[in-house]
Amino acid sequence: MSLNIKPIADRVVVEAAPAETTTAGGIIIPDTAKEKPQQGTIVAVGNGKKDEPMTVKVGDTVLYGKYAGTEITYEGKEYLIMRESDIYAVI
Amino acid sequence: MSLNIKPIADRVVVEAAPAETTTAGGIIIPDTAKEKPQQGTIVAVGNGKKDEPMTVKVGDTVLYGKYAGTEITYEGKEYLIMRESDIYAVI
Amino acid sequence: MSLNIKPIADRVVVEAAPAETTTAGGIIIPDTAKEKPQQGTIVAVGNGKKDEPMTVKVGDTVLYGKYAGTEITYEGKEYLIMRESDIYAVI
Amino acid sequence: MSLNIKPIADRVVVEAAPAETTTAGGIIIPDTAKEKPQQGTIVAVGNGKKDEPMTVKVGDTVLYGKYAGTEITYEGKEYLIMRESDIYAVI
Amino acid sequence: MSLNIKPIADRVVVEAAPAETTTAGGIIIPDTAKEKPQQGTIVAVGNGKKDEPMTVKVGDTVLYGKYAGTEITYEGKEYLIMRESDIYAVI
Amino acid sequence: MSLNIKPIADRVVVEAAPAETTTAGGIIIPDTAKEKPQQGTIVAVGNGKKDEPMTVKVGDTVLYGKYAGTEITYEGKEYLIMRESDIYAVI
Amino acid sequence: MSLNIKPIADRVVVEAAPAETTTAGGIIIPDTAKEKPQQGTIVAVGNGKKDEPMTVKVGDTVLYGKYAGTEITYEGKEYLIMRESDIYAVI
Repeated sequence: MSLNIKPIADRVVVEAAPAETTTAGGIIIPDTAKEKPQQGTIVAVGNGKKDEPMTVKVGDTVLYGKYAGTEITYEGKEYLIMRESDIYAVI
Repeated sequence: MSLNIKPIADRVVVEAAPAETTTAGGIIIPDTAKEKPQQGTIVAVGNGKKDEPMTVKVGDTVLYGKYAGTEITYEGKEYLIMRESDIYAVI
Repeated sequence: MSLNIKPIADRVVVEAAPAETTTAGGIIIPDTAKEKPQQGTIVAVGNGKKDEPMTVKVGDTVLYGKYAGTEITYEGKEYLIMRESDIYAVI
Repeated sequence: MSLNIKPIADRVVVEAAPAETTTAGGIIIPDTAKEKPQQGTIVAVGNGKKDEPMTVKVGDTVLYGKYAGTEITYEGKEYLIMRESDIYAVI
Repeated sequence: MSLNIKPIADRVVVEAAPAETTTAGGIIIPDTAKEKPQQGTIVAVGNGKKDEPMTVKVGDTVLYGKYAGTEITYEGKEYLIMRESDIYAVI
Repeated sequence: MSLNIKPIADRVVVEAAPAETTTAGGIIIPDTAKEKPQQGTIVAVGNGKKDEPMTVKVGDTVLYGKYAGTEITYEGKEYLIMRESDIYAVI
Repeated sequence: MSLNIKPIADRVVVEAAPAETTTAGGIIIPDTAKEKPQQGTIVAVGNGKKDEPMTVKVGDTVLYGKYAGTEITYEGKEYLIMRESDIYAVI
């Protein structure tokens, strides 16, 4: 589940959980209406800032803000790269 | 009353108290007129920031600002995740 | 005069002095023209921030800025909750 | 010349010097054209911020910015309450 | 691969990877539609800020933000000069 | 050349050099076209900020930004009061 | 190459390299189209900020941002005065 990327400082790389494609009632949600997921799995972790070690680790499932991070494409797959402070909680 | 979420740093997860559904005089308040509650119960607490331990704990009833925190949905229920500094007081 | 609220960090709860209802000349001031009071009594005090103990205490009469603090309702009564730095002076 | 107010932290209370009522040539200046004075006398001084004692004292005549401070009314008289950093110089 | 430039403080000089000229399907992308690359190679590194040594080094392939850095022309060739904090990750 | 004003903290009082009244070619410049001078002489110096002694002294001729400082009138004469950091250089 | 100016703190005085007057192909560039140069030589250096000695010295050829610094005229010649942090690199 790890990724061969080394984020700088307090950054992490997150693989977003796939957006739901059907509603609770079974209706298929068109692409444009899909909510951007706010949950994902950490696949790479930086070394933290000076005197502030990281508290999340690779494999953690995390909640983050709707607009957190920057999308990067790595080996044809999309990831989010964000600062640890953009993460709300580990679930 | 606790929740299986681990907020990062100085964040807390709050379960908002239900908004009042009737006025003092007994009139039912329609959904759109309900005031967003500013009181809630803490259900999860982070580890605090470096050298600043948390002062609130799970179970505390707290007052917070009208627009404090971000709504998250966890196991079908809505919570607010906010920084401890968004909390005004423990009552 | 104290209140069963524990403000977080450097916050204080202030009970605002009632606005004047008559002018110096005895004319009754209508509600809409009443000036929001800038003077009040402290009814609850937080523990202060790290390494910065509070300098005001419960019972102090204080002056504060016109738009300082946030109104909270507690047991049917209105209070202001503000940071100690929003207080100008103890009189 | 002192005042029974205790400003918080690095604040001072200043009694503004009366605005000039005649021009150098003796013409009476109407109220609306009077320049807001930028000079005053310190009547109360706070304890300073942590590790930064105050450098002005009660009785000092000071120059300050045109829009420095907040007007407060105390015992029927107007004063300015400002931070020491709003004061330019002692004259 | 190194460059005879000494960036100041925590700055690095990056040689951007050439933008793709054909799509995955083989269509030639016109110049105006080319995406500004977000990947490059570090060709010069500053000494870091006081007490914060650099974590990237010459030769590292890095990912950076779309609008990171300033373009400079050196010996007829274009480079980007940016702060280390503008770099997201080493790949 | 000194002035009986004691600037607070890292402030200095500068007497601006008179603006040029004729062009290099001898044409008299009307008042409205005169450039605000950016050069002046220091006539009073504060004690500096905590742990940062002042580096300029009374009598220094200094260059400063076009809009640096605040004009004050003292004993009928105009001066500029500014922070030492608004001064570019001693010439 | 040195200049009799003593910049304050972390400022430096830079003599900008003359803008190119002909294109690579030999066409004369009119004044209005000349690019403001981004390269220059340092002619005066301040003493640095507290605990941060300067890393550039008089004689260094430096690259800096297009809008860095303030133009000053000294003995009939134009210079740029800027903070060391406005300099990108020494070449």
